[in-house]
Amino acid sequence: MGKDESLTMTIITLLTDFGTSDPYVAEVKAVLLSGAPGATLVDVTHDIRPGDIRSAAFVLGRTWHRFPLGTVHLAVVDPGVGTPRPALLLRAHGHIFVGPDNGIFSAVLHDAVVEAVELHVPAGAAPTFHGRDLFAPAAAAAARGCSLHELGEQLAFAPRRLAYTEPRQEGRGAVGEVIYVDRFGTLVTNLPPELARDATDVRVEELEVGPVRRTFSDVPSGAMVAFIGSGRTLEVAVRDGSATDTLHVGVGARVELRY
Amino acid sequence: MGKDESLTMTIITLLTDFGTSDPYVAEVKAVLLSGAPGATLVDVTHDIRPGDIRSAAFVLGRTWHRFPLGTVHLAVVDPGVGTPRPALLLRAHGHIFVGPDNGIFSAVLHDAVVEAVELHVPAGAAPTFHGRDLFAPAAAAAARGCSLHELGEQLAFAPRRLAYTEPRQEGRGAVGEVIYVDRFGTLVTNLPPELARDATDVRVEELEVGPVRRTFSDVPSGAMVAFIGSGRTLEVAVRDGSATDTLHVGVGARVELRY
Amino acid sequence: MGKDESLTMTIITLLTDFGTSDPYVAEVKAVLLSGAPGATLVDVTHDIRPGDIRSAAFVLGRTWHRFPLGTVHLAVVDPGVGTPRPALLLRAHGHIFVGPDNGIFSAVLHDAVVEAVELHVPAGAAPTFHGRDLFAPAAAAAARGCSLHELGEQLAFAPRRLAYTEPRQEGRGAVGEVIYVDRFGTLVTNLPPELARDATDVRVEELEVGPVRRTFSDVPSGAMVAFIGSGRTLEVAVRDGSATDTLHVGVGARVELRY
Repeated sequence: MGKDESLTMTIITLLTDFGTSDPYVAEVKAVLLSGAPGATLVDVTHDIRPGDIRSAAFVLGRTWHRFPLGTVHLAVVDPGVGTPRPALLLRAHGHIFVGPDNGIFSAVLHDAVVEAVELHVPAGAAPTFHGRDLFAPAAAAAARGCSLHELGEQLAFAPRRLAYTEPRQEGRGAVGEVIYVDRFGTLVTNLPPELARDATDVRVEELEVGPVRRTFSDVPSGAMVAFIGSGRTLEVAVRDGSATDTLHVGVGARVELRY
Repeated sequence: MGKDESLTMTIITLLTDFGTSDPYVAEVKAVLLSGAPGATLVDVTHDIRPGDIRSAAFVLGRTWHRFPLGTVHLAVVDPGVGTPRPALLLRAHGHIFVGPDNGIFSAVLHDAVVEAVELHVPAGAAPTFHGRDLFAPAAAAAARGCSLHELGEQLAFAPRRLAYTEPRQEGRGAVGEVIYVDRFGTLVTNLPPELARDATDVRVEELEVGPVRRTFSDVPSGAMVAFIGSGRTLEVAVRDGSATDTLHVGVGARVELRY
Repeated sequence: MGKDESLTMTIITLLTDFGTSDPYVAEVKAVLLSGAPGATLVDVTHDIRPGDIRSAAFVLGRTWHRFPLGTVHLAVVDPGVGTPRPALLLRAHGHIFVGPDNGIFSAVLHDAVVEAVELHVPAGAAPTFHGRDLFAPAAAAAARGCSLHELGEQLAFAPRRLAYTEPRQEGRGAVGEVIYVDRFGTLVTNLPPELARDATDVRVEELEVGPVRRTFSDVPSGAMVAFIGSGRTLEVAVRDGSATDTLHVGVGARVELRY
């Protein structure tokens, strides 16, 4: 094919629990590139644990805002596919978001002015694969520049948000929890720098980790260390090792700060 | 580099058993982008079990037809690399297919008018890596618009097809089998909607699954369910679980329908 | 977005130990596409074992030279992130390389005329994520065409190189070692064709493999075989099987040649 003036340069990101062994991701990409020729596709991840909306919301919350304005984010972790749960297309912060109304956009909706439409299920859509038959065509249309009102009806209710446990002061300290564990076994917490920065003592469950440091190279290999992570919350790691394996804790573990 | 009027916009899809840990996929992509600058590369999957031509043919069969006309599909699951098995470039249904003649294109060849050429092994090609040294250069040339007869000699025989067990009527019912198991543990069968749609009773081996329903959300969490899947054949799943783990069956398992 | 005359067509390759489950790779890609709109991103791999600089250097060494001149290679396996280890941007062989000064570029530096600058850590860079905050912005700037001296200060020392054990003659034979094991369980050695081509007897540790053959299809299924691999060194495989599982050896195993 030659060059085509109607090509879009829009970026479309993909975040799913489909894995990368099966045909599913390629079927979605085929629909995207058919509907939005020239779009740049970026895999965020397809390795979300099946149905784990909470992790998907965390990963989306860390990534979307680093992409250029106008990026379309397709996020399909959708254990309720085929049920009457609404299908959403949102515009917030100058980005577009497409996916099920199950809380996956919680981190995006925080503090945002949101325009939202509910997508209609196209005739013939497979009830088990809205990623391909409902969300991908809508994402492609948005990438082509279709307006929200062409793609669905204005939402008559607020998009769903996950409930989060907020960090809290407790006596002379503060308490939060582990919200994500990464491939290095690092524990990501919900404790923001304002609370964590000056802590002289971090404990995970009953285990002493020590003061908050600058980075994991401030301790010897094999030692535990707490620091403000690259996502701007407190993290607990083992240098050249795995904190989740060493401490035998995961998502939900209690993290306590003393000053 | 500046923009170049000779850029191609063609999509090239990649389907291999190379995995994604080793240098192999990147070596192939480097050859593709060197030979067809500007091409859009789409990974179908690289996680086919080494040498599993049957799964590769299934995945290719589900995906190729959703891409735009003119797409080049590079499919290299090739346990016979280095033997005299022919290397193919096919045109069928307005798409181009490149890979070994071992049955990997079976699903594409069904009902198709096929033009086919046999590729010559370039001098110096590594006998263990035709993906990089034989198939990728041919795919890049096809993406650039080279004609079939520039790339090889007209095939003097029919491309190889895998033998498939067809679903059959048996008494007052029908019998098929599991042909693929996906990451969710869902059992994909070879039973088409015409046979399956009205079944009141589905059995996998001796196990009762129940009637054919619309989708897995028609049963409670943890229950078994049969439905017409997104690939338009009968599937058997466990809602929020894994049918392959629950039923202890996999590819080849007998699936029986009663009406 | 419409088309933009300032778009770059440069390829940027990515080689990391970040895995593909977490947000990290997408955060890096967002920075790359924000800084170099239109760039073509190619994943080499993200599945390097955490901190395994030696495997990263091997994979980079096999892949970089197959990409077009002008390609930018971002290589971040960086166990020393946050320590004072220098951050490098190199130009060699007409390609650009960006990453930590820890030996990851060893295979590139061999025999090369290298221009090198040391990158400054931007204010506000997360000490645990230089891939996103230091290396990706530099790679994007290089892809846009910035000159080396705009991006850092000329390096006052030679980039670090890993020490490699060279193959050596021993009596009437030669001795090398396994330097990489791939997903198929094939053992890649450091023995070049000049030494290996005429060997009549290959041994791995004390185990007899036989003569050097053309390819693995020269032996029956299940048999061990030595051949000159697609990376132009001796490899030892088991046809339709795994040499690492059959021989119970891995990286560092002694490989002996007799003539």
